[in-house]
Amino acid sequence: MQKIRSGTLAALALGSIVIPTAVQAAPPRSDAIREAALRDDVAYAFTEGLTTEIGPRPAGTPQEARARDWAVAKLKALGFSNVRAEPYVMPVWLRGRDEAKILSPFPQNLVLAALGNSGSTPEKGIEGEVVYFPSIADLEAAPASALKGKIVFVDHGMKATQDGSSYGYFGAARRQGPSIASKKGAIAILIRSIGTDHHRVPHTGVQMWAEGATPIPAAALSVPDAEQLARIMGRGKPVRVHLTLTSRMLKDQPSGNVIAEIPGSDPAAGIVVAACHLDSWDQGTGAIDDATGCGIAAASALQVAKAGQPRRTIRVLMAGAEEVGGDGARAYFKAHGTEKHALALESDFGADRIWRVDFKLPQGHAALGTRIAQALAPLGVGTGSQPAGGGADIAPLVNAGVPVIDLQQDGTRYFDLHHTPDDTLDKVDPEQLRQNVAAWAVTLDMVANASETLGVN
Amino acid sequence: MQKIRSGTLAALALGSIVIPTAVQAAPPRSDAIREAALRDDVAYAFTEGLTTEIGPRPAGTPQEARARDWAVAKLKALGFSNVRAEPYVMPVWLRGRDEAKILSPFPQNLVLAALGNSGSTPEKGIEGEVVYFPSIADLEAAPASALKGKIVFVDHGMKATQDGSSYGYFGAARRQGPSIASKKGAIAILIRSIGTDHHRVPHTGVQMWAEGATPIPAAALSVPDAEQLARIMGRGKPVRVHLTLTSRMLKDQPSGNVIAEIPGSDPAAGIVVAACHLDSWDQGTGAIDDATGCGIAAASALQVAKAGQPRRTIRVLMAGAEEVGGDGARAYFKAHGTEKHALALESDFGADRIWRVDFKLPQGHAALGTRIAQALAPLGVGTGSQPAGGGADIAPLVNAGVPVIDLQQDGTRYFDLHHTPDDTLDKVDPEQLRQNVAAWAVTLDMVANASETLGVN
Repeated sequence: MQKIRSGTLAALALGSIVIPTAVQAAPPRSDAIREAALRDDVAYAFTEGLTTEIGPRPAGTPQEARARDWAVAKLKALGFSNVRAEPYVMPVWLRGRDEAKILSPFPQNLVLAALGNSGSTPEKGIEGEVVYFPSIADLEAAPASALKGKIVFVDHGMKATQDGSSYGYFGAARRQGPSIASKKGAIAILIRSIGTDHHRVPHTGVQMWAEGATPIPAAALSVPDAEQLARIMGRGKPVRVHLTLTSRMLKDQPSGNVIAEIPGSDPAAGIVVAACHLDSWDQGTGAIDDATGCGIAAASALQVAKAGQPRRTIRVLMAGAEEVGGDGARAYFKAHGTEKHALALESDFGADRIWRVDFKLPQGHAALGTRIAQALAPLGVGTGSQPAGGGADIAPLVNAGVPVIDLQQDGTRYFDLHHTPDDTLDKVDPEQLRQNVAAWAVTLDMVANASETLGVN
Repeated sequence: MQKIRSGTLAALALGSIVIPTAVQAAPPRSDAIREAALRDDVAYAFTEGLTTEIGPRPAGTPQEARARDWAVAKLKALGFSNVRAEPYVMPVWLRGRDEAKILSPFPQNLVLAALGNSGSTPEKGIEGEVVYFPSIADLEAAPASALKGKIVFVDHGMKATQDGSSYGYFGAARRQGPSIASKKGAIAILIRSIGTDHHRVPHTGVQMWAEGATPIPAAALSVPDAEQLARIMGRGKPVRVHLTLTSRMLKDQPSGNVIAEIPGSDPAAGIVVAACHLDSWDQGTGAIDDATGCGIAAASALQVAKAGQPRRTIRVLMAGAEEVGGDGARAYFKAHGTEKHALALESDFGADRIWRVDFKLPQGHAALGTRIAQALAPLGVGTGSQPAGGGADIAPLVNAGVPVIDLQQDGTRYFDLHHTPDDTLDKVDPEQLRQNVAAWAVTLDMVANASETLGVN
């Protein structure tokens, strides 16, 4: 906007062009916010700072505690109000050594990473014969006699989708595979990484033991290692593997959420929650998962504030412990669930461009959705036909009926990096990150200033 | 060719098409070889077999010995003559644990790999303050007082070139950096990987201690880790690192070359050497470095044989120990240097397409070069204006005056993978590999059958 006004003045000074007053009128607030946000530097600086000065920040560890301190200081410096950490305690699984080698027929090492809550091997490891399953469905269909005393290998190969929807289907190997294998008597399970890259970087991630399943060692092979193991098994000879996955569980470790606000002019109008998560997996520095999400939430709230105080309070929620089960989201809801929440948004799918907006608004509020969709269209954002669902950090709010908007990010390359050592700052595209900030800023602004009645409580 | 003849016979049998005899004439030998080689499956199968059934094969280790046994069996099965391993002994450097963590100001782990011949830390590691150098030139220019007792970090970032020529310039940080740092009193050296990717896969590689340089621990950080360390150092606070790089040296370990021949009809015409190396670095499975090179050499020699016995013997040399200094090439020359070598070629730059041919032929042999260039043109191969130089596996032959041809491969993505854990089978493009086989086959055939007098001895 600044650029156009200067140009107009220069043209007038030259006396060469007469521009009708209507064209020179101040643009609508959304246009101004969008243009300013497309020049945003806060989101990238936040991401750079958190990933550089803290690095990996697993839930319930001292690194996550340092991330909270860092975020509180940063959000205060950025001018937010009511900045504070809200502590809780949680059990913590800690990775030890992750090592595997094929003993026969073709001795060589394999690169892998234990899954969250994996059982631990003894320090000297375990040995076993590997049994192959192309997919989780094959594992489910197999008789226990085929698995007993064996190391299970599930080789299902993930394919990328723009909206990330394939994570549900392919992710079952990680989420349910270990429990199924354990219940059928396997001594360990290896899965092909739930990932779409071809690098020697395994994709970790959480899995929860089902009722009655004894924890066994459980790990993800990098995609090239899974393909190698599959090729070796394809030779038809028995394959024996030595596996060392040491880990331990700690009780009642400190974790916490960080909260920061842009106070609204009308406290009775409810709170708009802009959520992300501060914790990350332990292998990378959590740049796209989810430092960028926190950068987007904070930067877009600030862009709204710069344009003038909103009607509703915007509350940035940087949740703890998202990766391991959502302890932070539950702690937030326990502490704040009775407050009036007008709407919630979450950013937790990287930093590539937003391509679609989905809504779940109260009956009779279609007009608000239309206004937002119109403001997003210049950013190349289409409108979806499915209801918004939110993510883990706002799940308890959404379950309680709080309206939600999803600004859907392009996930085509997200699962190249997700939960790997490769989730580092260099993967963030600053231009696409700014498009996220712009989409978030116009959306947050319209929701925070909507004249409609919104929310529950 | 088989396909065209069958089609023609079928058409004649149907009586539906009359084809002039001239069109049905057998194409020139080079055309036939090129077309057959573009359907080659041997090079890929060789690569797949070696990388799967052996995997990593560091020089002078039992894995390299298994690779020799594997290659001898495979080359015999493929129909080569005079297949044998030729043993020698050599000193061997063996990697131990490679671990590093920043202690302050921002505690976090770094991913790195010791360089070949690195000094070893004690088991418990060492600690030191890091000093930053943007390039090897800055390290050379620095006074010893700036390095003494410190851990040196050289951050020079490699850029890709199609012909790989930037390896000389950027590779100096690995080749000379450790000796310079040691002589100036540094306790260890970290370099940014000599690589062009952005993955958490460090690029190892050999370095030789200069006269008078005491071995110190020396390692390459992955590119994202080097960028992270540079950002952290850019904050201006002292940076302390804990480094554990355990390794050991063994004397007189068994290594060897593997040799296989397509015997020529005229023993007095000299031998054409088609070289590659069988050893690999220890982190990956050495697919592009250099299983594909050996696949190309073997497959192209077989394509020539299929077209009819050549005048000259084609000798495939699968050298040992290329990665660590060329012990195999020297052993070959010691054993065979007095034989008449007509010409040598080497494939050791991945498996992406050949784009240029360079020659170093005897005076008065320009016509042979022209014939080869004409046969390569249909494969999209241009002709260079610089003399060919060969590579490490044939360097002693080339130094002794043996003519050489370089079939230059596209190296744009070679240094994304070179010497990393990521050098695995999935990086090989079968179509580009076949183009290599075709270019090699027509070249080998023309050299082996050239009526000119070639070679030394």
